[in-house]
Amino acid sequence: MQYPEPISKLIDSFMKLPGIGPKTAVRLAFFVLGMKEDTVLDFAKALVNAKRNLTYCSICGHITDQDPCYICEDTRRDKSVICVVQDPKDVIAMEKMKEYNGQYHVLHGAISPMDGIGPEDIKIPELLKRLQDDQVTEVILATNPNIEGEATAMYISRLLKPSGIKLSRIAHGLPVGGDLEYADEVTLSKALEGRREL
Amino acid sequence: MQYPEPISKLIDSFMKLPGIGPKTAVRLAFFVLGMKEDTVLDFAKALVNAKRNLTYCSICGHITDQDPCYICEDTRRDKSVICVVQDPKDVIAMEKMKEYNGQYHVLHGAISPMDGIGPEDIKIPELLKRLQDDQVTEVILATNPNIEGEATAMYISRLLKPSGIKLSRIAHGLPVGGDLEYADEVTLSKALEGRREL
Repeated sequence: MQYPEPISKLIDSFMKLPGIGPKTAVRLAFFVLGMKEDTVLDFAKALVNAKRNLTYCSICGHITDQDPCYICEDTRRDKSVICVVQDPKDVIAMEKMKEYNGQYHVLHGAISPMDGIGPEDIKIPELLKRLQDDQVTEVILATNPNIEGEATAMYISRLLKPSGIKLSRIAHGLPVGGDLEYADEVTLSKALEGRREL
Repeated sequence: MQYPEPISKLIDSFMKLPGIGPKTAVRLAFFVLGMKEDTVLDFAKALVNAKRNLTYCSICGHITDQDPCYICEDTRRDKSVICVVQDPKDVIAMEKMKEYNGQYHVLHGAISPMDGIGPEDIKIPELLKRLQDDQVTEVILATNPNIEGEATAMYISRLLKPSGIKLSRIAHGLPVGGDLEYADEVTLSKALEGRREL
C-alpha cells in the first residue's frame, strides 16, 4: 500500500489524461489536496457538466450547449459560405480571428487510409447534404496542412467540382513572424507557388 | 463568446492546476468530452473523495484516510527510530525503497526565512513533543538536500543535541547511475567528504 486509496484513485484518473504521466499525476493529485474544497467541488462539477451538457450541433457539428449552435443560429452571419474544418477547436481558432463571417462544417477527423478512416467515417455525407439546398455558393477547405488534411481537401474538392460551387483551399506559406532560414522546403515551395502580385 | 460555458468552466478548472497553461487546459478539456461518461464521473468522484476523505495523521503528519495512519498503527514497525521528512510525498518515496522500518515525521515544509517560514510554522514543535516519551532513540534527518532542507536539519540537530538522542543526516553524494563528469562541485565535495572505508 503506497498511497491511501482516495488519492491513488485520483492519480489514476489524472493519468488517463493525455500527456500526464505517473509523476505529473502525483503532483496534480497532491496539489488538489491543497486546494480549497469549493474549488475542488467546482472542478468536479465542471467535469460532469461539460460531459453531460455539451453536444455537437446537428447542423455544423461544432461543440455546443444548445442545438443548433450559436454560429448556425446567428442570422447576421453569411449563409452562403461554409468553411470546412477537421475539429471543433479549429472553429474556435477561426472565430478568434474575428474576420470570418460565414458558416462552418466540422468533419470530426480527416481521411486517413492508414488508420482505416474513409470518407464515410467523417462528416462528409453531412456536408454534401447541406450543400443540396443551393443556399451555399462557396466552400473554403480549411483542413490541416498535413497529409490527411490535404487528402481530405482533395477528396472533397473532386466531389464538389461538378456542382459548380466555388471552392478554395486556405493558403500554405510562411507563418507570420516566421523565419525564411528555418522554413522547410515544402512550406517554402508552397509559399513560392502561392506568391501574390503586389 | 468563444467556448460554450460548460467547457470554458472546465478549461478554467484545469488551468488552476500547476504546470497547465491555456493550451494544455483546452486540450485536456476536449479530451474529457471524448471520454466515456462513467470515466468522467469516476474522475469527478475521485476529486471530491480525495479532498473530503483524506486528512493528515495526528501522530506523524503523513497523508491518510484513517487516523492514525497505517504506518503509525503498524505494531511490527520499529518505534525507536523517526525519519524526519518535509513532505508526505517523501514518505512515499522512502516506503517505495522497502528498507526502512521505523516511524516518520512529516514537517510539511522547511525553514525558509526568505519566505517568512520559521521553525514554529512547520511541525517542529510536534516533533519535539513526540520525542518526550523516551521511546525514540534515533532521529534520521531526511529533509531535502537544498538550502532550506539543510537549514531545517541543522536547526533540528541543534535542538536535539542536548537530549542525547542519536542524530543522523542522510548521505549526500553522487546519485547511483550518475556521472562523475557532470556532477556539480558541491555534490562532488560532499561525496568526497562522506567517503567510506572499504
